[in-house]
Amino acid sequence: MERLSFGVENAFTPRDDRLEGVTVAPLTPPTAVRAAVFHLAPGGRIARHPAVLPQILAVLEGEGHVSGGDGSFVPIAAGEAVFWSAGEEHETLTDSGLTVLVIEAEGLSPARAS
Amino acid sequence: MERLSFGVENAFTPRDDRLEGVTVAPLTPPTAVRAAVFHLAPGGRIARHPAVLPQILAVLEGEGHVSGGDGSFVPIAAGEAVFWSAGEEHETLTDSGLTVLVIEAEGLSPARAS
Repeated sequence: MERLSFGVENAFTPRDDRLEGVTVAPLTPPTAVRAAVFHLAPGGRIARHPAVLPQILAVLEGEGHVSGGDGSFVPIAAGEAVFWSAGEEHETLTDSGLTVLVIEAEGLSPARAS
Repeated sequence: MERLSFGVENAFTPRDDRLEGVTVAPLTPPTAVRAAVFHLAPGGRIARHPAVLPQILAVLEGEGHVSGGDGSFVPIAAGEAVFWSAGEEHETLTDSGLTVLVIEAEGLSPARAS
């Protein structure tokens, strides 16, 4: 067993023009299966870009808006998640601050609504 | 983009003798890369069993105790995570209730402490 921390104090600020007010706490190294917790400050944004791999974004805390391939924004809050296909353009932003878990992996797919 | 929910209202109670007071909200189907949010009620437990795949358990809310291959329990709380190797015996329990994210995948490995 190895211990990990994903609080703000364990996060770094990536140098990436698409990120505004965003820090990242990795749960895995940047291998084929990646997971990380992103902390978006109030007004933070992950600007529009294509998903490299199939991706799930799950909101752990706060609320914001996300868009997918069609560019229309929908609200999202704690307890909700979205799945984006490989290559799908998407964007995430928040007025009040947002903590999200991101999982990216080959072969990742979403659970079907029950 | 597909929407998912992982709140308690979207969770089911697995029939599994190793689980006590535990509900599960899947984020993915049970394929090679799996993610799910487990809600452990106060007194809940995921009893000792070997990890089928490399696994990360990340605490989203609450506090509890986890053990790995050596069987000794350590406290764990929101913002902390553990990694268990494939085949490693492990256990999770909580007095006061615990919400955890579990990711299992071939080739999963933990981020190195910074």
